[in-house]
Parts: sequence; structure tokens; C-alpha cells
Amino acid sequence: MDQITVGLTQAAVWTGSGIDMWDIEIPALESGDLLVRVDLATVCGSDLHTVSGRRTGACPSVLGHEAVGRVVGVGDATSSAEVGDRIVWSVTVPCGRCARCTSGFTAKCSAVRKVGHESAESPWVLSGSYARHIVVPRGTTVARVPDTMPDAVAAPAACATATVMAALEAAGDLDGRRVLIVGVGMLGVTAAAAASERGASVSVLDRDPERQSNSCAFGAAADDGARTDVAIDFSGSSSAVQAASERLDVGGRLVLAGSVAPGPPITVDPEAVVRNWLTITGIHNYEPRHLHQAVAFLHDTGATYPWEALVEAPVPLAELASVLRPTPSGILRSSVAP
Amino acid sequence: MDQITVGLTQAAVWTGSGIDMWDIEIPALESGDLLVRVDLATVCGSDLHTVSGRRTGACPSVLGHEAVGRVVGVGDATSSAEVGDRIVWSVTVPCGRCARCTSGFTAKCSAVRKVGHESAESPWVLSGSYARHIVVPRGTTVARVPDTMPDAVAAPAACATATVMAALEAAGDLDGRRVLIVGVGMLGVTAAAAASERGASVSVLDRDPERQSNSCAFGAAADDGARTDVAIDFSGSSSAVQAASERLDVGGRLVLAGSVAPGPPITVDPEAVVRNWLTITGIHNYEPRHLHQAVAFLHDTGATYPWEALVEAPVPLAELASVLRPTPSGILRSSVAP
Repeated sequence: MDQITVGLTQAAVWTGSGIDMWDIEIPALESGDLLVRVDLATVCGSDLHTVSGRRTGACPSVLGHEAVGRVVGVGDATSSAEVGDRIVWSVTVPCGRCARCTSGFTAKCSAVRKVGHESAESPWVLSGSYARHIVVPRGTTVARVPDTMPDAVAAPAACATATVMAALEAAGDLDGRRVLIVGVGMLGVTAAAAASERGASVSVLDRDPERQSNSCAFGAAADDGARTDVAIDFSGSSSAVQAASERLDVGGRLVLAGSVAPGPPITVDPEAVVRNWLTITGIHNYEPRHLHQAVAFLHDTGATYPWEALVEAPVPLAELASVLRPTPSGILRSSVAP
Repeated sequence: MDQITVGLTQAAVWTGSGIDMWDIEIPALESGDLLVRVDLATVCGSDLHTVSGRRTGACPSVLGHEAVGRVVGVGDATSSAEVGDRIVWSVTVPCGRCARCTSGFTAKCSAVRKVGHESAESPWVLSGSYARHIVVPRGTTVARVPDTMPDAVAAPAACATATVMAALEAAGDLDGRRVLIVGVGMLGVTAAAAASERGASVSVLDRDPERQSNSCAFGAAADDGARTDVAIDFSGSSSAVQAASERLDVGGRLVLAGSVAPGPPITVDPEAVVRNWLTITGIHNYEPRHLHQAVAFLHDTGATYPWEALVEAPVPLAELASVLRPTPSGILRSSVAP
């Protein structure tokens, strides 16, 4: 494959009120940067929040932070991949030097930049995956993807699957534990499968009966209302979080991963937390190790779970606007093939 | 030392309205039991709660669960110590077989019995430390105490110090971290010293200025109101817990150890928990390893911190009632030399 360094590419730009197609000059790559041709971008729910106005985002900007692609250009020999590599890349681009980075919370870097979240008027124009090409800056974690893994399986690794890996790490040892997953969209079913693979007995809870039954294929049973050792919330609903917190047995852990938009507070009884050794913990985005775990997990379980069936057939980039809305079933992830 | 197996002993019995001195026949020891002569019992705040009516306890009963003594009788060769051993012993006596015990929460054993909490009309009459002798049943964790450690240093190991060890374990790695201790009675200053020994930068917060300044001798500085990586609450005050929860920096952990009586709930913003990777966790009592850690910690830091100065001169057993109330300073622990 020949290195591409100059020329025009095309991006779908979120303007604050809609999507415009822009022709954009591929910038000169800086040391350590990668230029990646996006093969498939899946549509994460947080982009839907941005477009629906539930969450504010920079605009104009190129959204999209879950994708798989192939390296077509490198800034120099210090880049973390080579031309021709098939990769996924982290959402967060940390500085690697601040107190948060050095204390292990690179996702919360004081100077963090994020794929698919930066202004198209900033120096990092091609920051999102809803484009033919993306610039992946130095410092972004990159994971190589086996050629046998379909695009639709690989693309969610960089947000959904890696976030689930972070949530499961926060949940602790799951072998032999009862795990309740609240909210079984893409992240919930992935967590159900991953917890099941780690030896947990997994049940799921979702307001949507179709989502709930869909999760059977991912190692989960329907919730029976019993106490649980671990609850992991992906719903982001404060009332669901409240209810889950009250389901914990002694030593129980509640992991919050879905509450990424403002919502009502929950109440917590300190005496119950103390007497029952309870833990409530949150995770947001993930650390580099979780991206590598995500790719390995999808690879290892490719024959066990129907990952590819979770992603709808892709639309062309010019039709992005048509899929920036919840899918009718609420189960499948939309995708774009730029 | 000769083994004692029969005879009378004396216990100070909580009747629900006061303390009566009872002469009690030393029971025949069961297999694995120890008979211990109590040399010094310190007065834990939870006994004050029982006596003040803030907490209900069995009565009549022999209270007292923080003590040091010497083994004077053993049930048989399976006992965990020998006649003549100087020991401290765990508060909780777990069955070792139930689901909670086998999952590592022996303090929450489904059939737990507790030193200083059992009815004097139950088979375990001599269950508390406010007595000349106590029966320490099979299954109780026992830790040997070096002869060089004063009684006043050793006695708190079995409740205050071991609980602090559990709280610090829940707080995670403390090296280089900012740690805020809320409530600096015996547990708070012990936690300050222990966190300081683990490389933390420790500040303390207490409504009582005298308690706050007392804690300087234990490696702590006054709270400056800044964000913190770890907060550990021993105050049990919901408003203090609420305030501490709002002080956590990214990745912060709030450990609740003081909320052992009913109080108002706190509110928690799920989005803040997620976005800041926060953790709220509780501990109650402790596990066997924490008792051993407690004795080792007090031994290792005996020359560094004024442990002995935290305990008032003992009163005789017959004067127990006079010390079952908060000490005037609110800093020192009362003690009884039966």
C-alpha cells in the first residue's frame, strides 16, 4: 500500500443543526501522527445525544469515535503503526505527562483531546470517524485488528467494547458471582457476554422486552429480582441506578457506566454502605489496556457470540444524517462505510 | 502458668439500664475455645452508643470488644493459642462455612457471633471484655502481642486499629495520594498515622478543634479545603459524609467506616461518579488479616506515634459505669483493668 500524504478527503460535518459534506485537504502529518482510511464507523449513542441536543459538542465538527480502518500515512518512524496496518484507535488522546495521566487516569488527562469531539476549526480538523480519513495523533492508543475479524465486529471495540472492559475491571473478580446488567444495548450485551466468560451468573434488566430477549444470545438470563453481588448500569437512568443500588448483597459492587448526561441524584444510606460493605463506583471511557483487551475479547469470542448481528448494514457517508437517530429496535448499532 | 478450668470469675454486666457486677462460674471449655484473663479493656464508642440507647444490644450482656489478655485455659490441643500467650482477639466469630465466609466476608457471616455483643443468658455467657475472664470461641482470630507492647497500645488493636487497616485497604494504594480523614478520635488518628506511613499526604477534619490539633502528633495537617484523592470518614455524620463526597478529585475514593447508626441519606450524582471515576465504599468490622496487620502496625510505629497517650488510666472493673460515657476531651479512650 502506498503512503498517502496529500490530497483531498471528504468528511460529514456536524454543524449544530445538521450534517454537511465537506471536502477537506489532508493536512501535513506531524511526527507520530497516523493517517487512517476509515473502513467502517459505528454510531455510538453519545453521538445521538450530541445531535439531539441532550449533550453539547463542538461544532462544526466531525463526529464519530468508533471505527476500524487502515493506516495509509505516517508522520514519521515514531508513529505507533505502519502503513497497511488495520487498526482501531482510542477515543481519548492524553498528554501523558499531567498528574492525571501519571496517576493512571489518562482518559481524564487535564489536556485531553477526544476523537470525534474536536472542532473542525481547530488544528485537528480530521478528528472524527465520519469521514473518509481521520488523523490519529501521537499519543492515541492503537490496537491492531486481525484480518479475520469483520469490520462490524472490530469497529465497536474502540468505544463500546473497551468501555465494557473498564466496567468489568471495576466490577472486580466475577468468577462465581451474580451479575446484574442494567440496560442491554450494545454495551449491556457485551458486558453480559464478558461477565459470562469470566464465570459469572448473568441476568439482565431493560425496559424494552425486545432488548431483554435479544440478550439471551449473549449469555444472559432475565432478571429474577434477587439480590446480586455486582450490578453494572449502562442505562444512565437515575431511577434504574437507584433500584440497582438497593439490590446489592453484602460486599456488593455497583458499577456506573451509563450516566453520561445530567440526571437526578440518587440517595444512598451511609449505614447500609458500611454495614453491607457496599461499593458504588463509576467509569468513563477507558484506559489503553482496555482497548487491547477489547480486541482480544472480540477475537476470542467471535465464534461464541453473534457480534456482527449487532450492527446494521452500513450507509454511505453522505447518508450519515439518516442514521444519527436511535435505531428502530433500539438494539442494533447503525454504521457508516465512508 | 497453670491452666485454669474451673472456678468463679467476675463480669460487669449491662442490664439495659446500668451495670451490675456478677459472679459467674467459668464454663467448661469446648474444643478449640480459649479462656483469657483480661488485662486491659478499652472502651469503644459503639459500647457508648449501646449504653446511651442509640443502638440496641442484647441484655443482660457483658460488653467490651477491645482488649488484651493472657490465655489461662485451652479447650484442647486444637485451640489457636497456648496457655501463657499474650493475645488480642477478633470482634467477630464467623462460622467459616457460609456463603459470606467463603466469599471473603467473614465479618458478615450469616451466623456471626460477636465478642461483647452476646446475651449473658446465651450459652456464651463470658462473651465480653468487661470481665476478669472471657471465653474466646473456636474460629475467633487471635493475634499474639509482643511483650514489649504496653496494654494500652495493644488493646485497641482488636477494634479501632484493625478497622482502620480494613479502611485503608479499601482506600487502595495511598503512596503520594492526598488523604482526608474526617473525624479524628482514636480511629481517625490511627488512620492518619497509617496513611502517613504509607506515603500519603494526610489532612484531617473534625468539628472539635482540640481533636483536630491532637492529630498533628499522628502525621496529619489541618484540612485546607482542597480536593482530595481519598477521604475516609469515621465521624458517621451524614452531612460530613456528603461534604467529603463532594471533595473527591478524579479517580477519588470515599471510604465510609463511621456510619454505624441510622442517619439521613446522602445524595450522589451518578453523572459525577461516572465522569470523575469516583468510588464510594464502606467497611464494617474487619477480616482476620486486618487484626494481624493492626498488631504489626502498632509494633512497628511504637516509637513514632504516642499510642499509649490515647488511652486514659484504667479504672477497676467495678467502676466500669463511670467510664461508659464519652471522655471529657473526646480524644482519649477510657479503659478498664479487670
